[in-house]
Amino acid sequence: MLSEFDLIKQYFVRDRPGRAVLGIGDDCALLAPAPGMQLAVSSDMLVEGRHFFAGADPFALGHKCLAVNLSDLAAMGAAPLGFTLALALPAAERAWLDGFSRGLFALADAHGCELVGGDTTRGPLTVCITIFGELAPGRALRRDAARAGDDVWISGTLGDARLALAGYLDEVALAPADLALAAPRMHVPTPRVALGRLLADEGLAHAALDISDGLAGDIGHILAASRVGAILDVDALPAGPALARQPQALRRRFTAAGGDDYELCFTAPADRRAAILAAGERCGVAVTRVGAITAAPGLRWVDGAGAALALAVRGWDHFGGA
Amino acid sequence: MLSEFDLIKQYFVRDRPGRAVLGIGDDCALLAPAPGMQLAVSSDMLVEGRHFFAGADPFALGHKCLAVNLSDLAAMGAAPLGFTLALALPAAERAWLDGFSRGLFALADAHGCELVGGDTTRGPLTVCITIFGELAPGRALRRDAARAGDDVWISGTLGDARLALAGYLDEVALAPADLALAAPRMHVPTPRVALGRLLADEGLAHAALDISDGLAGDIGHILAASRVGAILDVDALPAGPALARQPQALRRRFTAAGGDDYELCFTAPADRRAAILAAGERCGVAVTRVGAITAAPGLRWVDGAGAALALAVRGWDHFGGA
Repeated sequence: MLSEFDLIKQYFVRDRPGRAVLGIGDDCALLAPAPGMQLAVSSDMLVEGRHFFAGADPFALGHKCLAVNLSDLAAMGAAPLGFTLALALPAAERAWLDGFSRGLFALADAHGCELVGGDTTRGPLTVCITIFGELAPGRALRRDAARAGDDVWISGTLGDARLALAGYLDEVALAPADLALAAPRMHVPTPRVALGRLLADEGLAHAALDISDGLAGDIGHILAASRVGAILDVDALPAGPALARQPQALRRRFTAAGGDDYELCFTAPADRRAAILAAGERCGVAVTRVGAITAAPGLRWVDGAGAALALAVRGWDHFGGA
Repeated sequence: MLSEFDLIKQYFVRDRPGRAVLGIGDDCALLAPAPGMQLAVSSDMLVEGRHFFAGADPFALGHKCLAVNLSDLAAMGAAPLGFTLALALPAAERAWLDGFSRGLFALADAHGCELVGGDTTRGPLTVCITIFGELAPGRALRRDAARAGDDVWISGTLGDARLALAGYLDEVALAPADLALAAPRMHVPTPRVALGRLLADEGLAHAALDISDGLAGDIGHILAASRVGAILDVDALPAGPALARQPQALRRRFTAAGGDDYELCFTAPADRRAAILAAGERCGVAVTRVGAITAAPGLRWVDGAGAALALAVRGWDHFGGA
């Protein structure tokens, strides 16, 4: 029988120096933020059967639970510093813990983000991560910072995570090769940390957020906070490679309102276009201009020819459903 | 139907200025720690059926979920700054949310501790709070700081929370008046924040932790981290008022290994006794000397007459059970 303390020691305490003054093992961890820096903080809770399937691969799950939190730091433009992990588990199974902790730490190490503390308990499988990042004052990519005339940009591609889900749920008949192409976007999303940091550090963008519940719903948070509107070209939205092979109607629906994308949506003045394209190249991620911020409120969609579209799409609500 | 955003807005966003640079509503909250201060961070996850009964009073639950986190700050000697709340709920019920948020904020306000962000989702009732506090460098009450010859102190009283649980579970036939006296210690524990801060700020104590899984098990963390032992007088342990009326055997068992106490156990040099008693008076909480740290490893128990006792008690293990 693996005890709580053995579990923490064997799978989560690591023999490597970190930035924390004091890490796992006391009542609190102690962090010393760099002088003058602000601390960015975000929490995400993932529940079995809600955010991931029962029986999900533990390595991928460890990756994804941290990735969605890193994505929040990316959307703020913050540099990862550390995180806490609270874990409710039905049982302390070694194979699961081994896979989960390996997936978690592989991504954590890639971003220099240290596990500093947390909690473990028995319960329905639930993972709650709180992540900490650093940011120079005034540099944060806030949701209330979009201005009329800004371009709207999207990092990477949209919709393949939603396409994979549709394949699993048999909403869409998906060729095995297409599912294999789309599935990693659902299981092991890539947080755009380097791009977010560049946009913030170099003052390239105004507002940003990460797309987790679908662009159509999520951009509404920027529009509401900034008291502006937007016009978006649905056919300019960059579809994932698997979704790009699908019919136009599905492509439009899943790029505009797919969910689980973890790409950045950001706004920036038109005179930064060249710098933003260069920033994307430096980070190895495509950046695509998909529309503009307007003084008039509301979100309007157009097609590739500029004709108005009434898209019946909205974001994901964790209580109301989609 | 209450949407996720309405839920957050109605029950958790507050119209009062806080210390956060940016609070609820963006991808991250932004905190600006005071110059030179360290940040103390702790996470606790509470699961229905494991840490509280199904159908628990939501006001008391809101209080307790924050109290156990404040207790971790207290055990480090840190001043509360803010917290994130991640909440999985089977349904968005207004009466529950109203009670829970009132209980949560009543305690948060009493400690000037601001809700800065979090997450809400549908799922089995689970509450995960990550709390942040501030501390001057070198002042933390760490578990590895006990020294041979230190006194061992306990704040407040022990065992009434465990006695109430025993009453609910019919392990002990408890008079209604005794249950009424003991129950608040289980449902609305009082974190010893002011005492912990005084002990740290004035350099009165060496090591400290908060007693959540029972003194007998928890003190082992100080002994292991500090590579010392301890001798404790079981009859010196301060029993809660309801437990004080019970037979000696039960009193010893529940004070030594009750659990859910959220009192501080701390060690301090003998020349600080008067200052520690004065600190307790200033904070309005009793402090009781119950033993001493020894160079020889291991935990030894004696009775009030100084005779050795073999107490068959140990702490609570969330996977192994008690």
